[in-house]
Amino acid sequence: MEKILIIGGNAAGLTAASRAKRIDPRLKITVVEKGPHISYSTCGIPYYLAKVVSAEDLVSYSPESFEKERGIKVHHNTRVDVIEPGRKRVSGVRTDTGEKLEFDYDRLLIATGVTPKLPDIPGLDLRNVITVLNLQDALAANEALRTAEKVSIVGAGYVGLELAECLQTLGKKVHLLERERQVLPSVDRDMAQIIEYELQRFGVRLSVGAKVLALVGHEGRVNGVKAAGGIGIEPADVVFLDTGVEPNVDLARNAGVQVGVTGAIAVTGSMETNVPAIYAAGNCAESYCPIRRRPVLSFLGTVAAKQGRIAGENLAARRATFHGAIGTTVLKVFDLAVARTGLNEKEAAAEGIPVLSARIEALDRAAYYPAAKKLWVKLVAERDSRRLLGAQAIGYGDAARRIDVAAAAITAGMRVDDIAQLDLAYSPPYGSLWDPLLVAAQTLIKRFD
Amino acid sequence: MEKILIIGGNAAGLTAASRAKRIDPRLKITVVEKGPHISYSTCGIPYYLAKVVSAEDLVSYSPESFEKERGIKVHHNTRVDVIEPGRKRVSGVRTDTGEKLEFDYDRLLIATGVTPKLPDIPGLDLRNVITVLNLQDALAANEALRTAEKVSIVGAGYVGLELAECLQTLGKKVHLLERERQVLPSVDRDMAQIIEYELQRFGVRLSVGAKVLALVGHEGRVNGVKAAGGIGIEPADVVFLDTGVEPNVDLARNAGVQVGVTGAIAVTGSMETNVPAIYAAGNCAESYCPIRRRPVLSFLGTVAAKQGRIAGENLAARRATFHGAIGTTVLKVFDLAVARTGLNEKEAAAEGIPVLSARIEALDRAAYYPAAKKLWVKLVAERDSRRLLGAQAIGYGDAARRIDVAAAAITAGMRVDDIAQLDLAYSPPYGSLWDPLLVAAQTLIKRFD
Repeated sequence: MEKILIIGGNAAGLTAASRAKRIDPRLKITVVEKGPHISYSTCGIPYYLAKVVSAEDLVSYSPESFEKERGIKVHHNTRVDVIEPGRKRVSGVRTDTGEKLEFDYDRLLIATGVTPKLPDIPGLDLRNVITVLNLQDALAANEALRTAEKVSIVGAGYVGLELAECLQTLGKKVHLLERERQVLPSVDRDMAQIIEYELQRFGVRLSVGAKVLALVGHEGRVNGVKAAGGIGIEPADVVFLDTGVEPNVDLARNAGVQVGVTGAIAVTGSMETNVPAIYAAGNCAESYCPIRRRPVLSFLGTVAAKQGRIAGENLAARRATFHGAIGTTVLKVFDLAVARTGLNEKEAAAEGIPVLSARIEALDRAAYYPAAKKLWVKLVAERDSRRLLGAQAIGYGDAARRIDVAAAAITAGMRVDDIAQLDLAYSPPYGSLWDPLLVAAQTLIKRFD
Repeated sequence: MEKILIIGGNAAGLTAASRAKRIDPRLKITVVEKGPHISYSTCGIPYYLAKVVSAEDLVSYSPESFEKERGIKVHHNTRVDVIEPGRKRVSGVRTDTGEKLEFDYDRLLIATGVTPKLPDIPGLDLRNVITVLNLQDALAANEALRTAEKVSIVGAGYVGLELAECLQTLGKKVHLLERERQVLPSVDRDMAQIIEYELQRFGVRLSVGAKVLALVGHEGRVNGVKAAGGIGIEPADVVFLDTGVEPNVDLARNAGVQVGVTGAIAVTGSMETNVPAIYAAGNCAESYCPIRRRPVLSFLGTVAAKQGRIAGENLAARRATFHGAIGTTVLKVFDLAVARTGLNEKEAAAEGIPVLSARIEALDRAAYYPAAKKLWVKLVAERDSRRLLGAQAIGYGDAARRIDVAAAAITAGMRVDDIAQLDLAYSPPYGSLWDPLLVAAQTLIKRFD
């Protein structure tokens, strides 16, 4: 009976475990997770803090229920310290009891995820300075928020923006600080401005181009944020940090597993590392960008789950290959849906790819139909090939729909000329005779004349 | 100064006129429309009858405002009787004054649309027997509905289903009769059953497999419907007919323009007919199905508008080619969104294409997020090539989004294996970690094992 060992009990690890077991029920599969919880939705944490969903809702399985339903052994609160590829053995410690544990494996999956990447500033160790990357953080944050009035959020990426909405809606006074000149660097600045307007419309105080220099406190608890640009120390009862994450690769590296130039674990399309019988998947492993044609970092749950599924197939000795991912995301910021896929203009420039782009404003359904909503769509296409490279859609309408279509079109290598003629669904309650994506493609085609 | 003449003042005709004028403002463009109205949304008529939108809302331009804004001459209430290709001349009559008119052209576009195809039954000429294909019909229908309590709808296609919802919501007692064994033949029977359940949930009386034998009346006005199957004469104050349409091709045929085996005007990808300088576009012209690789009929506004745009480009001496259409549609039936694209199982069987299919039930967003809604997705793929041929999505969630992605994937020739790995947008308010389309593709892949 072959033994599969999986380090990491979230999206990639558990998806791999479930998939492998489903394909080959004879496999003896063990999952080791360092924290107390497994199988929870990290993406749902802002909505838990906003009291839209409960903590229980975020958790799909307890270690016990997962074991029982899936026939997969789970060791939670268990930290792995060493992987010995030569002996095919892993050793660790039960963090709550101190008990030492050893696990043998025939095939090993590393799915150790990420850790917050913190800025090099004083005050990070103060109480009520919070990163929300796991459920424990979230439970602690919920406690800290009980008595807080003023909340500062450092970093206006996906999580920072979601927190800004969720905490403002909860009745807190939110100050969102971003060191870049715009929120959400994964969209172009002209699109980011739409988000900035929405934040301010709902009363969020926004400071862009504001580098945080220090967190200050009193009796060990944070009470202010000092940012560059002369705004002095701004009072804050709680400070959330959304300043990026980095892959957890030390355990792998110490075992001789190769880490790529991206800083994540290098893997093949089958999720194999350079070390025989060791696989990696999820946010600790490199993703692959079919547009750039090279490995990239990805910190998205969708990509982690897909890699986990591919890893699970291969762990169960079925051949499967990961096709890569193009950074498709959607995000709610108050009444706005913000979605993007592929490369934006800045990213294309960074790759040295000459592009043309067009941005349009349209209604998401027949203009005369009640509740037709405004949508901005921006497309970016390669100048030489006319292929779509990226799309951004922001608006009060169905942005994700247009971005998902663009993601399929980019993946298929479609030219803007093909996209402008896509046969998309229309009826007055659900769309426009000319879908905003088609209008954007028509507009972009003119730039090629 | 070149003269462009366009017969037909709706989606195809006016789109062509506008596009040609935009490209070459020197063109002298004339539109001739037999009815009193131009530029209205036929698709919006059910929502006008439901009082969701006004008649004014449905009309984008009057003949006068279109002339003024676009610099295109419009003759409404003008019926064309003869096209003389040899003399490049068209003659007709002003229907309200009887005045005879002649128009010369350098290039002519035929965009004469469709006429209702009526069943061969007695009683069609009774008052309050209504087809809603144009705005005049709709205005008359609105009058007829004022005092009506019981409304029968014959035919459960797109319009029949929309009317059923709209009139039931308006407070009428609606009886929907369909001669086939299911509603909406453009989806498979297992999917149609979801719609049938919804109709009954909202109190619509539904009779499938019910062939209408006669409409009966009193003093020239309809008061009942007699259908096969022994249900006798059912009282009805108004009867709507949604029993299909047929292309208006007599004018073209009489001028030597070739009509295809489909019954619509045969056109090239540039919308040219066999007669020099005569083009055709919209519902009177053939569409092209890239899956079946042959001309097909299409009675959709989206396709008419696309063909009109292509015709307009070519009328203005710019080269453009219509890529075809795959029957992508969406429809609202009470709380259900009903969307489909490509071939369903029946249609694939009719083409002799061996297929495999899978149907799944899923939630349209994270299960824990409030208002996550049920969605059924069915995919049909070619057995030999594994290519997606068709998709159907029905549910209380965002069906159009999944169908638009499927439409792009079908157009690009994607295999189910590619679709199962598409990088689609996710966050809890807008989607599932595994989008229903991905789950459906994963399920379908297993059928190939």
